[in-house]
Amino acid sequence: MSAIIFDRVAIIGAGLIGGSIARAARQQGIVRSIVVTARSDASRARLTELGFADEVVATNAEAATNADLVILCVPVGICGAVAEEIAPHLKAGAVVSDVGSVKGSVLKDMAAHLPDHVHLIPAHPVAGTENSGPDAGFAELFINRWCILTPPAGAEATQVERLASFWRAIGANVETMTAEHHDKVLAVTSHLPHLIAYTIVGTADELEGVTESEVLKFSAGGFRDFTRIAASDPTMWRDVFLSNKDAVLDMLGEFQEDLSKLTRAIRRGDGEALFEHFTRTRAIRRGIVNIGQDEAAADFGRKHASLGTVDKPS
Amino acid sequence: MSAIIFDRVAIIGAGLIGGSIARAARQQGIVRSIVVTARSDASRARLTELGFADEVVATNAEAATNADLVILCVPVGICGAVAEEIAPHLKAGAVVSDVGSVKGSVLKDMAAHLPDHVHLIPAHPVAGTENSGPDAGFAELFINRWCILTPPAGAEATQVERLASFWRAIGANVETMTAEHHDKVLAVTSHLPHLIAYTIVGTADELEGVTESEVLKFSAGGFRDFTRIAASDPTMWRDVFLSNKDAVLDMLGEFQEDLSKLTRAIRRGDGEALFEHFTRTRAIRRGIVNIGQDEAAADFGRKHASLGTVDKPS
Repeated sequence: MSAIIFDRVAIIGAGLIGGSIARAARQQGIVRSIVVTARSDASRARLTELGFADEVVATNAEAATNADLVILCVPVGICGAVAEEIAPHLKAGAVVSDVGSVKGSVLKDMAAHLPDHVHLIPAHPVAGTENSGPDAGFAELFINRWCILTPPAGAEATQVERLASFWRAIGANVETMTAEHHDKVLAVTSHLPHLIAYTIVGTADELEGVTESEVLKFSAGGFRDFTRIAASDPTMWRDVFLSNKDAVLDMLGEFQEDLSKLTRAIRRGDGEALFEHFTRTRAIRRGIVNIGQDEAAADFGRKHASLGTVDKPS
Repeated sequence: MSAIIFDRVAIIGAGLIGGSIARAARQQGIVRSIVVTARSDASRARLTELGFADEVVATNAEAATNADLVILCVPVGICGAVAEEIAPHLKAGAVVSDVGSVKGSVLKDMAAHLPDHVHLIPAHPVAGTENSGPDAGFAELFINRWCILTPPAGAEATQVERLASFWRAIGANVETMTAEHHDKVLAVTSHLPHLIAYTIVGTADELEGVTESEVLKFSAGGFRDFTRIAASDPTMWRDVFLSNKDAVLDMLGEFQEDLSKLTRAIRRGDGEALFEHFTRTRAIRRGIVNIGQDEAAADFGRKHASLGTVDKPS
């Protein structure tokens, strides 16, 4: 039996996520050919050099033509426009998907343009790094991470399962839920953390009385952990917050209430309330490590030099 | 010439930080003997087993007797009480220090009890992990991290330099500043990030409509980065917030203003404001990596399994 799940796969936007999908799918032998798009000559040259695609083309229309699976790996704000662009070129029976961090708006935006003869099955692999661009991708990115599918009502079960098997073959665990529920869950596990990280890193950047050099030097006290996700792609994240506004504002409200509670405990010197809260949160970390969603090693497994490199006094 | 900087070193509280100092100082050969304290029989037995100290004793008084350097590695809230306890036993000329994350209150609390014939030089190594206890320590913890000394006015320069050379010999970079300035700088680089992380992890823990299992599963979207510091020692952090209340509340005020600005931008759909902010914060990460205060590797260098371990469809 063949291991091929989709013959021709078009990846529109070969950045961190798109480039990782291409590398992984090729390495696993589950596609016959991969076509990627890039607008500029320079990007196309780089993609050709990287060599993870069989074809590098200039237009999304060309990529979509004859594709069995089309995956939009672009900021969620332009998924609708790309769907409109490729719609006339899609072949009957093609699966059209994406990797956006917001699903409600993407589903609505894309469904408005796609013909009835294709299968729209939005997806969101919950994986990534703070880097972006085609050079940032790697084949192992999705291993043991979750990919959430949000098929619309009436989606064909065999096509949903086909896309799920594609994601499983490149290492992901797959879960299916409604777009609405996805957007609520991700608002807390991803969007709110990013917003808070972006905020605190901005706060530290413009303080009176503490220099930027001091902030950088003493960042190992905790601050540096926030800077990683505050270094994520600005376009992608602008679109996430604009597209998932309601759920994000809801979560922000919850967060604000909890922050007020802890602020009040500090102001009043209520050590018991602080201790109780800090003990409870410690358990969550253990839960994440136990299910394999983070390293058990201390400090994310960050490396340390050896004392042999440190001068001893003589 | 001898490499010994202090003959007899007493470490009061041999947890993550104290245990790491002991391991590193012994490995570098900069002390002649190390004595550590533990109250319970079980802790003393474990410390003896770990073997990073020459003596394990039951009382702080005994440890302090004849010590040339005494380092309090206990929560900042009890530094005053420990200073009172050891004061009558300190020998003339001893250096007394600590490792607390707050310096103003520690300096005040300890100075009130110590005799004039010792040198009080508070210190704060800006290093650590989310783990605590004597098993969590390791000799490399301080390499390329900063240790901040906050000597009181009138401290003897040769003794400050002596303590600085001790920290440098175990890998740290040393900087000197006032306790007041320290507390302001650390409020932003450490205390505020911890408070925010504790808050958001608590928020995620008690949401309606999103299960805890979902929060854990999809934590790779960003949330898991916050759980590490929200797993830090509850007693230590309760004391930090109670002891550095004013600076922390100030920083919280700044953070709240910035969060309101971003919240407003989301509510109004102001993509430009979001994009501008997210671009600015990206640069901070680069600054931290450039000065060697975090890994350049994506995602903190977290490891990934190989696709060879993932089943291909047949």
